[in-house]
Amino acid sequence: MAKTKSRVGKSAAVAAILGKYEKLRANIGQAHGTALIAEIAADCSAYLETKAKRIDLKSSVGGKSYFAFSQDPRMSRAINQDLFIEDQRVLANLLGKLTADPGLDWLSAERCNRFLYTIAISFCALSDVTADNDQKTPGTFFELFVGHLLSITFGVKPRNQVEVLTVEDERSTLPTDFIFDLGPKQLKFHVPVKTSTRERAVQVWAHQRMLNGVYGEGRFKGVLVALAETKLDRRKLEVVEICLPDQWAVYQRFVARMDRVYYLDLPAKYAALARQFPYIPVKTLGEFFKEKDTLVKPESY
Amino acid sequence: MAKTKSRVGKSAAVAAILGKYEKLRANIGQAHGTALIAEIAADCSAYLETKAKRIDLKSSVGGKSYFAFSQDPRMSRAINQDLFIEDQRVLANLLGKLTADPGLDWLSAERCNRFLYTIAISFCALSDVTADNDQKTPGTFFELFVGHLLSITFGVKPRNQVEVLTVEDERSTLPTDFIFDLGPKQLKFHVPVKTSTRERAVQVWAHQRMLNGVYGEGRFKGVLVALAETKLDRRKLEVVEICLPDQWAVYQRFVARMDRVYYLDLPAKYAALARQFPYIPVKTLGEFFKEKDTLVKPESY
Repeated sequence: MAKTKSRVGKSAAVAAILGKYEKLRANIGQAHGTALIAEIAADCSAYLETKAKRIDLKSSVGGKSYFAFSQDPRMSRAINQDLFIEDQRVLANLLGKLTADPGLDWLSAERCNRFLYTIAISFCALSDVTADNDQKTPGTFFELFVGHLLSITFGVKPRNQVEVLTVEDERSTLPTDFIFDLGPKQLKFHVPVKTSTRERAVQVWAHQRMLNGVYGEGRFKGVLVALAETKLDRRKLEVVEICLPDQWAVYQRFVARMDRVYYLDLPAKYAALARQFPYIPVKTLGEFFKEKDTLVKPESY
Repeated sequence: MAKTKSRVGKSAAVAAILGKYEKLRANIGQAHGTALIAEIAADCSAYLETKAKRIDLKSSVGGKSYFAFSQDPRMSRAINQDLFIEDQRVLANLLGKLTADPGLDWLSAERCNRFLYTIAISFCALSDVTADNDQKTPGTFFELFVGHLLSITFGVKPRNQVEVLTVEDERSTLPTDFIFDLGPKQLKFHVPVKTSTRERAVQVWAHQRMLNGVYGEGRFKGVLVALAETKLDRRKLEVVEICLPDQWAVYQRFVARMDRVYYLDLPAKYAALARQFPYIPVKTLGEFFKEKDTLVKPESY
């Protein structure tokens, strides 16, 4: 039984990045968390530019161009050319500002989205080219990264469970994705975070349904945050986007209502769901930071 | 990028078994399907007894003993000692009777369950010891095996999708697990089939919720069929059973109601759910063949 996550012979640079990643969990919502994310992003960007080479990919996704980083024998996931900040000085400048003001009010939605996409995809690409079949590390980084940004925004630390009365006189807790609880009798947010949803999307709506059932309809606002829905065929060097908008519409009508979905690499087929019944507002994550004040106000309930 | 499903150097015996497995899908609910299953079971049993060796496992599951088949360098999943029919003559006799009368009325629930467990786990074990990291082939065999038995019982072929009105004036279909439709204005069954559920169990209740939402509460009876919830640590040679009964209880209360859950290797923690609110009737699959007449009668609605 071969181990699938071997990073045998990983360089000191990669070990240093993973060391910072390990420290991130304990620093969610804190200034040191922002500093760690800024360092990880700069380190990943530098590593990829110096150690990996770029490979152009054939895109079957309308209006989007993709490339991948490659470090023999491994290749990263697909990277959206228009969303990726190549210039390390531009990135360093933005990371410096992020550390000083992690609220992200100082960027337009579009530039903010590119910036956050670059941070997230750089770590994923670094992990892809330095380990075999490791989906967990990039997935966890993305969760921690988004959890940190939202923690700063909401001003509270996230929880990963809710309390449920399961059987008479017994209390139990149920694991969930992030829960941001703005306090007694204030808004609560249920925030699943996924690098992609694919055929697992129904889990998101099912968890929302469960929270609605336990705490009453609308007690938790449901906000899904996802990275992308691209899939790379590494043999054909071809990128496709896997979207199931009809299924999402059924989930939104018949399982539970999600208040928002935010993507870094927003699929056009999901963005279209915002314009027809049952109206799922799917936007870029950059837009979250422009509408966050509306979203957290009680009158938006 | 190494292929994970290589069966390089597989023997003619294994190739013959996989060839029969490939034919099974086109013969669901037909007499030839029963014949294929009987041949596959006999072939797998013979292969494992002659080519693989048994390894006793340390069981951390109360009241259950497990072993595994091993064919260097691979080891099968855990096999429940008490449920596995070792004697090939006994198995051959049962397979002969199955081919003659696939309704399974001629066996007690307990003996029926052992028989079906032996068929299912033998194919899984054969796949485990002849391929690396292939979860799909055993999973698909188990689906087809259960789908066939239920198709014989219900007297109809299963479907894998339902029709949904997604947006005004547009029809769409939604992929599901097996649907057994007993005809217009008759009972309909929603039958997810899983080798194990683990953290994916919420999907089962979410799909039931969706069907309830689209077609009305109770229109589809929900029947989950699963093989086992064991997990084998191949380094420690130790078997654990992963059960989340508190979560199931929350799903049953707040997501949707499943009418039955049938296991071949029934976890005691799930069986206990039948005895306390919210009452999930979890039984052995052998018991299904004793209560099937009740289950399909309209008055059981």
